[in-house]
Amino acid sequence: MAQSKKYVYLFSEADGSDKALFGGKGANLAEMTRLGMPVPQGFTITTEACTRYYADGKKIADDIILEIFKKLEAVEKLQGKKFGDAENPYLVSVRSGARASMPGMMDTILNLGLNDTSVEGLAKLTNNPRFAYDCYRRFIQMYSDVVVGVGKSAFEKFIDEYKTELKIKNDTEFTAENLKVLITRYKVFYKKEMKKDFPQDPKEQLIGAVEAVFRSWENSRAIVYRRMNDIPSNWGTAVSVQSMVFGNMGETSGTGVAFTRNPSTGENKIYGEFLINAQGEDVVAGIRTPLKLEKLEEINKEAYTQFVNIASNLENHYKDMQDMEFTIERGKLYMLQTRNGKRTAQAAVKIAVDLVKEGKLTEKEALMKIEPKQLDSLLHPQFDSAALKKTVPISKGLPASPGAALGQICFTQEEAVERAKKGKVLLVRTETSPEDIEGMNVAEGLLTARGGMTSHAAVVARGMGRCCVAGCQELLIDEENKTVVIAGKKYTGDAYLSLDGSTGNIYEGKIDVVPADLSGDYGTIMEWADKYKALTVRTNADTPADAAQAVVFGAKGIGLCRTEHMFFAEDRIAAVREMILSTSEAGRRTALDKILPMQRQDFIGIYQAMGELPVTIRYLDPPLHEFLPHKDEEISALAKDMGVSFETLKATVSNLHEFNPMMGHRGCRLSVSFPEIAEMQTQAVIEAAIYVNKQGVKVKPEIMIPLVGDLKEFKFVKDIVDRIAKKVMEKSQYNVDYTVGTMIEIPRAAILADEIATEAAFFSFGTNDLTQMTFGFSRDDAGKFLDNYYATKIFESDPFAKLDQSGVGKLIKMAVKIGRESNPKIKLGICGEHGGDPSSIEFCHNIGLNYVSCSPFRVPIARLAAAQANIRNERVK
Amino acid sequence: MAQSKKYVYLFSEADGSDKALFGGKGANLAEMTRLGMPVPQGFTITTEACTRYYADGKKIADDIILEIFKKLEAVEKLQGKKFGDAENPYLVSVRSGARASMPGMMDTILNLGLNDTSVEGLAKLTNNPRFAYDCYRRFIQMYSDVVVGVGKSAFEKFIDEYKTELKIKNDTEFTAENLKVLITRYKVFYKKEMKKDFPQDPKEQLIGAVEAVFRSWENSRAIVYRRMNDIPSNWGTAVSVQSMVFGNMGETSGTGVAFTRNPSTGENKIYGEFLINAQGEDVVAGIRTPLKLEKLEEINKEAYTQFVNIASNLENHYKDMQDMEFTIERGKLYMLQTRNGKRTAQAAVKIAVDLVKEGKLTEKEALMKIEPKQLDSLLHPQFDSAALKKTVPISKGLPASPGAALGQICFTQEEAVERAKKGKVLLVRTETSPEDIEGMNVAEGLLTARGGMTSHAAVVARGMGRCCVAGCQELLIDEENKTVVIAGKKYTGDAYLSLDGSTGNIYEGKIDVVPADLSGDYGTIMEWADKYKALTVRTNADTPADAAQAVVFGAKGIGLCRTEHMFFAEDRIAAVREMILSTSEAGRRTALDKILPMQRQDFIGIYQAMGELPVTIRYLDPPLHEFLPHKDEEISALAKDMGVSFETLKATVSNLHEFNPMMGHRGCRLSVSFPEIAEMQTQAVIEAAIYVNKQGVKVKPEIMIPLVGDLKEFKFVKDIVDRIAKKVMEKSQYNVDYTVGTMIEIPRAAILADEIATEAAFFSFGTNDLTQMTFGFSRDDAGKFLDNYYATKIFESDPFAKLDQSGVGKLIKMAVKIGRESNPKIKLGICGEHGGDPSSIEFCHNIGLNYVSCSPFRVPIARLAAAQANIRNERVK
Repeated sequence: MAQSKKYVYLFSEADGSDKALFGGKGANLAEMTRLGMPVPQGFTITTEACTRYYADGKKIADDIILEIFKKLEAVEKLQGKKFGDAENPYLVSVRSGARASMPGMMDTILNLGLNDTSVEGLAKLTNNPRFAYDCYRRFIQMYSDVVVGVGKSAFEKFIDEYKTELKIKNDTEFTAENLKVLITRYKVFYKKEMKKDFPQDPKEQLIGAVEAVFRSWENSRAIVYRRMNDIPSNWGTAVSVQSMVFGNMGETSGTGVAFTRNPSTGENKIYGEFLINAQGEDVVAGIRTPLKLEKLEEINKEAYTQFVNIASNLENHYKDMQDMEFTIERGKLYMLQTRNGKRTAQAAVKIAVDLVKEGKLTEKEALMKIEPKQLDSLLHPQFDSAALKKTVPISKGLPASPGAALGQICFTQEEAVERAKKGKVLLVRTETSPEDIEGMNVAEGLLTARGGMTSHAAVVARGMGRCCVAGCQELLIDEENKTVVIAGKKYTGDAYLSLDGSTGNIYEGKIDVVPADLSGDYGTIMEWADKYKALTVRTNADTPADAAQAVVFGAKGIGLCRTEHMFFAEDRIAAVREMILSTSEAGRRTALDKILPMQRQDFIGIYQAMGELPVTIRYLDPPLHEFLPHKDEEISALAKDMGVSFETLKATVSNLHEFNPMMGHRGCRLSVSFPEIAEMQTQAVIEAAIYVNKQGVKVKPEIMIPLVGDLKEFKFVKDIVDRIAKKVMEKSQYNVDYTVGTMIEIPRAAILADEIATEAAFFSFGTNDLTQMTFGFSRDDAGKFLDNYYATKIFESDPFAKLDQSGVGKLIKMAVKIGRESNPKIKLGICGEHGGDPSSIEFCHNIGLNYVSCSPFRVPIARLAAAQANIRNERVK
Repeated sequence: MAQSKKYVYLFSEADGSDKALFGGKGANLAEMTRLGMPVPQGFTITTEACTRYYADGKKIADDIILEIFKKLEAVEKLQGKKFGDAENPYLVSVRSGARASMPGMMDTILNLGLNDTSVEGLAKLTNNPRFAYDCYRRFIQMYSDVVVGVGKSAFEKFIDEYKTELKIKNDTEFTAENLKVLITRYKVFYKKEMKKDFPQDPKEQLIGAVEAVFRSWENSRAIVYRRMNDIPSNWGTAVSVQSMVFGNMGETSGTGVAFTRNPSTGENKIYGEFLINAQGEDVVAGIRTPLKLEKLEEINKEAYTQFVNIASNLENHYKDMQDMEFTIERGKLYMLQTRNGKRTAQAAVKIAVDLVKEGKLTEKEALMKIEPKQLDSLLHPQFDSAALKKTVPISKGLPASPGAALGQICFTQEEAVERAKKGKVLLVRTETSPEDIEGMNVAEGLLTARGGMTSHAAVVARGMGRCCVAGCQELLIDEENKTVVIAGKKYTGDAYLSLDGSTGNIYEGKIDVVPADLSGDYGTIMEWADKYKALTVRTNADTPADAAQAVVFGAKGIGLCRTEHMFFAEDRIAAVREMILSTSEAGRRTALDKILPMQRQDFIGIYQAMGELPVTIRYLDPPLHEFLPHKDEEISALAKDMGVSFETLKATVSNLHEFNPMMGHRGCRLSVSFPEIAEMQTQAVIEAAIYVNKQGVKVKPEIMIPLVGDLKEFKFVKDIVDRIAKKVMEKSQYNVDYTVGTMIEIPRAAILADEIATEAAFFSFGTNDLTQMTFGFSRDDAGKFLDNYYATKIFESDPFAKLDQSGVGKLIKMAVKIGRESNPKIKLGICGEHGGDPSSIEFCHNIGLNYVSCSPFRVPIARLAAAQANIRNERVK
């Protein structure tokens, strides 16, 4: 028979370093106990008990219940009190505590153990019947709401009604007798709702509360939080049961919270608040204004000094800023909890650097203390926090691209371009298309009614570092009459809106914007990150401006320069359309000749921005119909412009229509059908390189063929590139170092990576498309059903945001393995959206890629994530 | 240094069993030589020389040319003649010959070696100047056309003009002098066109001809033929150079072709034709009417007897019906070539069975002699061949589904249903949609203007065994005025058309149709096939009629029963639409309750048709918008019918619109969003099974969840199935043996097959979708660019017709391996279009699948292909 597992540990028995088993809260209570700090004793029920609860069909097994009662007995003995006792009653608090801090879960239950008998005991013990009955009243209220889920508003109504009855104003005016009446009313209500009495057996109360904690692990808030924070659902939560101490036992008692350093600024100075004669919930409720921690020194110097010492010891022990809860019961200090404190990005960076300066952390350890995604807020302008406090959002969309933006409403890209010359504008669209690109560029921010985090607007905005709030469901746009309705209220084009791309909030009017401040501490952190990372971080950039921005953020090359965005620009779209409409190769060549000089200029600009860093240029990728309008009016207008008949243009558009354009005539398939496009692009790439080389900058173009699925297909396009490059170089008698590689974004390319690697100088994993095709999910459509997948817990995260390591990742690993076996010199990178996601970056590090590439504003995040990955799992550079 | 390779072999040196090296023609010439048969001697240039020709940049290497000349010398010595000699000139024929017979390649060149000198020698030698100059004239003409590619029509014009000049009617009236004049005119023309003289050096002529054969390996006809017949382009062709013998040396000479058995009927009787005083090209040209072979007995008994003996020996030697060419030069018989003869399906079956009866072949060997795809023509009604000879097609489409059909033209499915009650109809549509299904069912055949071999019309028609000609580009339909224009001619609904789905031909009027005759020999072959195959063959069938048809064809179960086709039927589409429009689960359940009894009835019918054979039922798969109309008029009409507003319906339709529906909200994703659909389908499956079980037939439903990509997703739907099945079985107190498995059609499912196999009872590889997503090709769109892929030789076959073994196949192999490792009992099958393709079936056999499933009319093909696969590569049953 297997050794039976232990599910319940006294604080003094538990291993303070094992957060996986005891949760953060339980582990830290054990650690503080071990360190001899004044912790009200208790026990922790492990996360494995939670996992078992679900495995057993949402039932706490009898053996676990027995174990709980045994530990309860031990603590009772320790404290010299007894559950439900009429003389010396034992009371506890019950708290949830997962491995990672999870605000979505169950609230704390205080005063558990009170019943009609023990409340008398508490009254006697404290010699304060009013206090005892108020505790009991609060407990019934809290337990009913949190554990059983009834009466939240009803109990508040009872209080109000009774106050009216008694003609009093404040809760504090209730006498002990009043509270007894109220308790009776609560219990009557409870019985009516639940068809049974409020539990009088403290053990029954306890098991009910434990089960409520386990249940709360799967409530919808917790599920959403886990998805947003990459927490696996199989971790489970622990439950800590702690002896009650009372901050509300009169004027020598109190309760408070404190941070060892300032969580907003990072300043190295203890920062906290407390309330005299209060329980924890009073501090949180915010009804009474708490006092600054420093005040405690005047009130109880001994306790204050003891607390400051404990705080300092805890910070030194955990080597991180601590967030602590404490209670003073009749003058004596108790530590209720400690944890690493949440902090702003600015504080995170400062604290990390300071801790190194203070000799408490190594550089590597300091890097591990910062959440990479948090850095983002340091890179964008933000709303002035004081101004923000004074206003409430009128609506909310998805926080698609961070930053703050304010401007007047524009409805079309033409309007945006025009009005942006005079003032700040926002582009407000139902959804954006590639044609809106210039409007997106001139606008301060974007707001769309449709589309998710990976919609066109979101992807392009992130690429540009432009603030974007996408998919606002309360937004209705009347383009014709130039009005929008947001959450029921109408706005014209004159109106100002303020958008917060970091939260998705939409505000009416103007809120002051503060520019990004890349302080010295940020620079230090980035320097350390570069020192310890193994992955190179490149950027996805399509314009010289983006490229320059990315270099400022530390990009060491371009991993993806999409050439199609260049084709949409106003000065060339006409020639592009002329090419598409040509029915002969000669016609297409004539049109391409017009694009060539502009395309060459694009590349010159990008090379100049990047200097001698490598630049990966991806050849034309989207299906050609994306360059044509689709509505009859627009076709008609364009036909007039182009001097062709409506019918001709309409026929071309309808001929180019595809049922599934994502899997249609795009990528290198265009080069197979129309080699002249690849020829023109090669000529532009090489001629531009020669031009810049002659200026003394040795540029390194890496030509990337998209959507390859077969070696012969790659070779076909590569041969075009080599032929034209040779011709151009011979003509100008100047050689350029260029390489030709491919995207790996079609499952077949990953499967046959060994063959393709024989000809390719590099692979860049295009994880957006690879995810689409590996899952069979259209990114544009999956939003409609993915919510059902989260709700049913089939998926715990969005595979387009966080790389699916088990499926897509397995394919990538295989491609890396067989690709390297067949071509050991091949350079491997990633350029999908995932290239900027920390957990995906860690995956890329672990499978041995050479670089990740992401949008400019994610470069610092990627640098830090890459460093953390290497610190966790070092690899030889 | 490596041993230098030998590229040229005398017939007497070559290995007659090595067709890979010498091509079919070269190998058989060597073999006949070895058997002592009268073969004009010569040599064969190997297929490796062809491969090297391409590797060397389309150049015959000097060492190979030297080898050719050395062998030439040897043969000259053997024959006692000399190339270009004025006294005793040596002449040769030059022929292409690949490993497999390839009609797309180069024609034979006869009389090579003639020039201004040797023609005199030939004249003297034969004492027949007219004969000699006619040979020279023919040679120049043939060489110019075939080798150099000039003058095809010009030379014919010269002949006609000269006949007019001379006032003669027939070529035979030309004198030797006339022919000399003609030769001069030919040579002048040649020089004008080619800027050089017609080659007088016989060796130059020879190398030119050899190069022309190599070149012809890559001409477009050859490429198309190879793609259609799965011949890899790296095989290359051999070249056979053979001493000329002359059938045109007067009345004791002649030439002919013969088969050892009748190639039309298979009758065991030698069958041939010959012409006196003629060369091979005269027989082929068909200007003179040839004599029956039997006539030869009267003319030259010795030669006849010798030939009949040789024919019999060859058949016994090759154990197959032979197709032979022979020439009699001045009374003496020469064998020019032998090969396994092409034959009709009927003949193939009879010959194979007869050869076994005659003790010449084992059953296994006999099975290998039949091309599985050929069987198809035995299963369908066909046009009476006599009637067919008298008529020419008016146009041609793709042969999308075989068989013959005649009927009057119908334009809509309603019209077809109505008019089919009175007579035979054809459904003629621009393209078909799932709503046309009833019209397709009542029509004799289908004709569409758009869509390829895997369009909706083609797939459904093949499934039904209904004749279909698809994608006829010369077809214009005017639905409003009820007329069609085919190749410029207008037809009304009264007109009759005849469609040949096996050739794609379209005929005006009525051509008699002969029903399929499944003769005794066919039955014998099928019996043997079942005896020797390891794979089980199932069918894809959605209706009791299809199921019954498939059982007749020998299916051992249903591998794919698509339930969505049932949803389109007229009596239930309204309820389906009601379900889609419901905004609540309750509303959907109300609608589903209406569908339930009909769906149950569907399954009862199918179970009854299949008896105790397993029936795999796939749950609803297509996106819901497929059940709604998309055009405003149709939406408006339906809205009226359904009693909802146009706006509501329009909004629903537009809300369901997807950018890439293939990768959208479909398959099991529907069950995740709307579990009530899977619940209803389960209830229908199990209730129907109970009903039929109670009749004493123990049915075996296998429930198949489509589009699964993740274990949890599969488990979610399987849990619904199990829960409802349990409920239904408990209610009726009757147990049903059912299993739940999944399609593997998403790359991710193949990658994670080990996980999914822990819960799935079976996998069915849905290779249509798996091919789409592994390649990133939308089947509906890829037609537009795949032609470019064939033209550039990136692809040699259509991955939707022939399974891509290197890419998709690698994924399947992996899924089979890890799936079986994790669940050794798992049943594995395939149900894509590939399940009926012989080479794909062989692949399925080799990787160890349990069954293939294909449309009913492909079942016999699959049975034979499965037997052949097992004979080639036996596996333990």
